[in-house]
Amino acid sequence: MADNSELRERLIEKAKSGIKEAYSNEEYALMQAVNAWLELGKSRNLASERLAEWFGIYAPESVKAGEADLAKRVMELAEKGGEGGSSMGRRMNGDEASALKSFAEYGVKADAALESLEAYLKVAANRLMPNATYLTDEKIASELLSRAGSLERLATMPASTVQLLGAEKALFKHIKYGSKPPKYGVLFKLADVTSAPKDQKGRIARVYATKLSIALKADYFSKRFIADQLKKDLQESLKRIAEAPPRQRPQQRQERQGRFQPRKRFGRPDGRQRGQRRN
Amino acid sequence: MADNSELRERLIEKAKSGIKEAYSNEEYALMQAVNAWLELGKSRNLASERLAEWFGIYAPESVKAGEADLAKRVMELAEKGGEGGSSMGRRMNGDEASALKSFAEYGVKADAALESLEAYLKVAANRLMPNATYLTDEKIASELLSRAGSLERLATMPASTVQLLGAEKALFKHIKYGSKPPKYGVLFKLADVTSAPKDQKGRIARVYATKLSIALKADYFSKRFIADQLKKDLQESLKRIAEAPPRQRPQQRQERQGRFQPRKRFGRPDGRQRGQRRN
Repeated sequence: MADNSELRERLIEKAKSGIKEAYSNEEYALMQAVNAWLELGKSRNLASERLAEWFGIYAPESVKAGEADLAKRVMELAEKGGEGGSSMGRRMNGDEASALKSFAEYGVKADAALESLEAYLKVAANRLMPNATYLTDEKIASELLSRAGSLERLATMPASTVQLLGAEKALFKHIKYGSKPPKYGVLFKLADVTSAPKDQKGRIARVYATKLSIALKADYFSKRFIADQLKKDLQESLKRIAEAPPRQRPQQRQERQGRFQPRKRFGRPDGRQRGQRRN
Repeated sequence: MADNSELRERLIEKAKSGIKEAYSNEEYALMQAVNAWLELGKSRNLASERLAEWFGIYAPESVKAGEADLAKRVMELAEKGGEGGSSMGRRMNGDEASALKSFAEYGVKADAALESLEAYLKVAANRLMPNATYLTDEKIASELLSRAGSLERLATMPASTVQLLGAEKALFKHIKYGSKPPKYGVLFKLADVTSAPKDQKGRIARVYATKLSIALKADYFSKRFIADQLKKDLQESLKRIAEAPPRQRPQQRQERQGRFQPRKRFGRPDGRQRGQRRN
């Protein structure tokens, strides 16, 4: 029996160290950080809009939405109890001032946290995925990592999957209901894609995905820095795409022929009850 | 000409003072505050979940989601550079520690801002709508105000509209597609509604809406406090509802007969293209 409990101890120890080892890779921290960054960005935007709207009651003539240091201005005004606001706004009372000040402080803190997360993303993404980060940037590379779930999975994905990471919803809508197939997911955030003419965006995303897939394999397996050469190749491809004559739109019938035929639609996305008659 | 510019000055002054007067009512500040509170609550929840998940990498055995002082614990751990974490978590590096600490500080600030907003809601709602606040609470009363757009509009609404404030989406879905009509909007947040048996919720919301509509008229017009009596009446009605025998479900056909017949559905909520064949 004494042996048994000793064995039990040893097994627990082993399980614990297994967990520790599994988490020892920094990619888990990076994934948490990038998700925190994405969520925080949304919260911050929401708070900025609200702050601008709220502050607009007191100084309607001097608020610009999205103003960078609005939170700081609000805090100053609230500290003075709304004194020196404007000739046409509402006069703030003390209760309002302290609520508004606290909300503005929250906004300032959100900005600080965003900055700090961005700094970490930069360091960690360059450490874990130097090639992929060099090709894109630390935010896009980390978001791809988080969508894939681990660097191993991301590195072993085919380029076409990397291209569509983040577009799962549109992809399944395509398969189920036959809407247009998506061309890009996370990669849509690339400046090269965003700024491209509409008919080139898809091709540019594909080129990026191809090179990224090579870069990620280097990041995970060989750990050599090859992104210099990759970026040169990439830029050449982008140039070719930009110079290519605009594609002719195929005729409706021809277009249909060669394409993947989506499954017939099932389910009832229109909310009709089962057995209910069509009108 | 000198006269003209003087006139112009005077008119601008008048417009400014008009704006000032329009905003002089505290209800605008209250509406901003309650919206800020609602949005901030969501952001805070998102951040708490992320924090728990992130912290779980370092101390998997000691994280409970929704833990009240998690942010403070995270800050302490991060300040020590992850020292004294746990036997099985990941060891934090310096970059991680500062990002995580900043994120946790943001969480703490969000809590503080929430508290401060709640304090303001309490004061202002009791000042502006003492009757309605007494019947429900400061959060529900303020949210109703914000949905209505002004105290005047809210006070002049019929009880049935008050009952459905915040359920606009469900109401239009009902009108357009014939789904079940909503029973409550914001009023669903009342503890009396939440905790009631399913077949009583609608009736309880209706009773509340009726009394609220009277209370709001007193808040806006007579400014007398009559909510004491209203609450007594309300409680009696609630008692009657609780004691009433459960309603028999009407037969499908009978139920259809007496009901509002929704408009035939139009539009294409299933995303089919115009002219596309049904399968």
